[in-house]
Order: sequence, then structure tokens, then C-alpha cells
Amino acid sequence: MNLEHLEIVLVHPETPRNVGSVARACKNFGVGRICIVGSPEILVDGWAKATAHSSTELLDSARFVATLEEALAPHSFAIGTANRVRKGKLPPLQLPHEVLPDLAQATRSGTCAIVFGPESRGLTDMDLACCTRLMRIPTEVDQPSLNLSQAVLVALQECWRHAKGWSPSLPPGAVPVAAIPDGSTLVSGATRSDDDAPPAFSEFDLLLARVESLMAKAGFRPYVGNPESFHLAARRSLSRGRFERRDLRTFLTMVKTLERLTGRK
Amino acid sequence: MNLEHLEIVLVHPETPRNVGSVARACKNFGVGRICIVGSPEILVDGWAKATAHSSTELLDSARFVATLEEALAPHSFAIGTANRVRKGKLPPLQLPHEVLPDLAQATRSGTCAIVFGPESRGLTDMDLACCTRLMRIPTEVDQPSLNLSQAVLVALQECWRHAKGWSPSLPPGAVPVAAIPDGSTLVSGATRSDDDAPPAFSEFDLLLARVESLMAKAGFRPYVGNPESFHLAARRSLSRGRFERRDLRTFLTMVKTLERLTGRK
Repeated sequence: MNLEHLEIVLVHPETPRNVGSVARACKNFGVGRICIVGSPEILVDGWAKATAHSSTELLDSARFVATLEEALAPHSFAIGTANRVRKGKLPPLQLPHEVLPDLAQATRSGTCAIVFGPESRGLTDMDLACCTRLMRIPTEVDQPSLNLSQAVLVALQECWRHAKGWSPSLPPGAVPVAAIPDGSTLVSGATRSDDDAPPAFSEFDLLLARVESLMAKAGFRPYVGNPESFHLAARRSLSRGRFERRDLRTFLTMVKTLERLTGRK
Repeated sequence: MNLEHLEIVLVHPETPRNVGSVARACKNFGVGRICIVGSPEILVDGWAKATAHSSTELLDSARFVATLEEALAPHSFAIGTANRVRKGKLPPLQLPHEVLPDLAQATRSGTCAIVFGPESRGLTDMDLACCTRLMRIPTEVDQPSLNLSQAVLVALQECWRHAKGWSPSLPPGAVPVAAIPDGSTLVSGATRSDDDAPPAFSEFDLLLARVESLMAKAGFRPYVGNPESFHLAARRSLSRGRFERRDLRTFLTMVKTLERLTGRK
């Protein structure tokens, strides 16, 4: 786990104090990047700086973006956090020890994000569908759920321990999960080219936009005319496969061929 | 680990929001008791209830006491939390995996406490000397330290995982720590008498007061006339030994004998 390649993404946080507490937790566990989907106005009343307590530099350098897509664009792997999944269309909700080995591997070759939703309602299904994997933090009771900064704290602590070589805490009967071997990250040594680096979310987004446009031109009516549902399913399929950049190029070639076909038709 | 036998003790907490967050964290991890050394006024401005969010019953049932001694009186084992120990006279500062097996064992036969200090300065050396063991929560940096409710959260999570049979998260090279065998708690089955239960802090306090009075009468000038330093050392020696009730009785008999001696002199 390369903690310097990790960014905490807060989607529309509602209370400045929580944002400050998140900064403090980040500094406590060696993570230096925060991205906020929302307005910098969250920092103006001063409460975020007050609770950040010696971590205000993380607030000063926070990246502000308008959408989760923008937040994830530079990253190659993202973990979405949820208390419970409400629909069957999303990846399974996993425990930290099941998700972290792959996050750790992904941080070796690119930057990664852990995404947290607003205090009052958490991440939407559409938000969760943008993420590579979904994680829940195990507790005794569902309600009250962990507060935003508490959830970030537990996740960061898990990452920090992984980075420092601590053994994972496992539920009874569980066995340690090894990272899934991945062509791009198994390449080691000095012969690594840019082509071996995993593609960023922004590259998936471009391909996905083209596929959706192509399907629309071809008269495809996805999921009984529900483009959002198709978008969700397509994004999930693309991100879960952990494709390499060369795979994306192959897809793009296929799309281009099909685009010519719809143009001719 | 019997979570029902665990109490979170907050010594002079300063911010109502933190007290509420602690209640929320307790409920999240199945702990139902909070004791506050300080005034119930901490609850009056309503912020504690606001941040407790569906855990307000823990605030309603919180035990308020004037001193840490009163807080610990009913318990047989107490973990004091600290960021770093400032004097050489205290027990060593240990990691959660080193302390929790003994806490778990102690919760089987009596009630136990985990003690947290005020936000601004933590527990004093005198407070720490009242505890059976000292624990620190490992982080990347000392400053900013974990916020009070964050520290409680991490400690509670560790206890909950231990209670649920999760394996401990261990630093590189560490081996799991087994609970120290203890005569009183090794007794299992139905033949257990009250005498086998570990003595509570209040019983130690009574013995300690008598020892100090005895020594004073005997003309003992502890630590170059510093009774507080002697009190600290004596308490540490007594609590670290994990004596059984019958041992206390033996001590008391010895003290009584010596008291007669000083009366005669």
C-alpha cells in the first residue's frame, strides 16, 4: 500500500466539522490528499479548520470538483463505502480485509480513491456504480451508522496498518485474501512502460460515452428505455474487469468499426 | 471479551459534541456504559444529544462521578489511554493487541473500564497510575493526536473485534499475545465462589489508604517526603500484580499486625 497514492474523496459533505475531522484523521494515518465533490464554501465558516487541528494544510490543498466522475478521473481504482447495498445491480459489499489487498496493489502503479457519501444519506447507487469495489465497515449495529469522520478514520487505520505490514484483523473462519494477480501490476522492474500502467477512470469514461453514443445510434433501447440503468451496468462491467490500457485500445478499435457501420446504415 | 462488562470512562471531557460522538461509537460497537468524571452540565447545551444520534439512551444512563477513583471503584481492571508516557514511573505503554487479551479475560469475571483523558491534555500521570494497564493507539504521527471520540472509536472497534472472535491486527514480526493465566479467572464451571472473583479497585483503595496511614505513623518519609509519588508507586505495584481477593486479605492481616506495632511504639 502506497499511502501517498491514496486520496479520500468526500461527496457533498454537509458539516464543516466533519471535513476538519477527516483532515485530522488523514494526517494521523499518513494520507495527504483530500478531494471534495462540492463547493469550497464548506471551509468558510472556520469550523473545518478548527477541528482539523494541525492538519489545516490538507484543507488548504484540498481538490474541489463538481462531480464524482471528475473526482475519480485521475485514479485507476476506487473503493466506494456503504452501510448496506440497496439494489442488486452493484458489486458486493465487502469487508476491509477483502478489499485492501487489491487497493494496495493498485496504489503501486497508480493513484486510488476511497469515496464517502454525505452524512445524511451516504453514496447513491449511481455513485457506488462509479467505484471499482464497495466496502462496508463492520459494526455491532447498523443504526446509528458511523459518523462520516468515524468511517473515514476506520478505513484510514486499516490502510495504514496494511501499509506498515500489520496483519489484517479477520472475522472468525476467514482466511487472508491475497491480491488478485493483475497483468499490469505483476510487471516489475525497470522495463515498465506507460502502456503497462492501469488506465484511469477518465479513460473508461471516454470509452463508455462512445459506447453509449454508438448504441443510441444503433437504435439500442437499453433496459426498457432506461439509459441510466444501462450506464450503471456498463460502467460496472468495465471497471470490475480491471482492464489494461491495451485492452481499452482494443475496445476503442471495435467501437470505431461499429461507428462506421452505424454511419453507413 | 464480554462487552456488557465494559465501561468507557471519560475524565473531564471538554466538548459536548465529543461526548455525543463517544455515545454513538459505544452503540456502534455494542458497549452500553459510559461514566463521566465531571459534571452533568456537559449535557445541558444539547450538542451531546445531537451528535449522539440514536444513542441518547447511553447519555441518559451515564454515570457521573467526582473522581477517577470513584469511576474505577466498581471495576477490577482498567486500561488507561495515552499518546506517550512522560515519566518513568508508570507501566509501559502497550499496543491494543498486547492489552486486549487480559482485558477480555478480566471482563469474564468482573466489570472493566477503558479510561480517556480531557481533549486538551489527556490523562495525568496520577490518572494513569490508577489504571491496571496503559494503551496507546498506533498512528503515523503524534500530532495532531487522535481526537477524543476518534480514540474511543478505535479502542471500541478493537474490543468489538476481539469479542466477535476476529483475529488481532499485529505489527510486523509480532506474535499474538495470550492472556496471562490468572488463578481467579482460570477457575471455570459452577464451583466458582465470590472469593474467586478479582477484587475491585475500591478494595485496593482501602488497602492502599491503610498502608499509607501505617507508613506515615511509622515515620516513613517516602520518596524524599513526596507522598504523591509514593501513592503512585504503591498503586502501580498493587494493580499490576493482579492479586486475588484472598491475597488482599493476607495483605490486610499484615497491615493490621503492623498497625498494632505502631500503636505500641
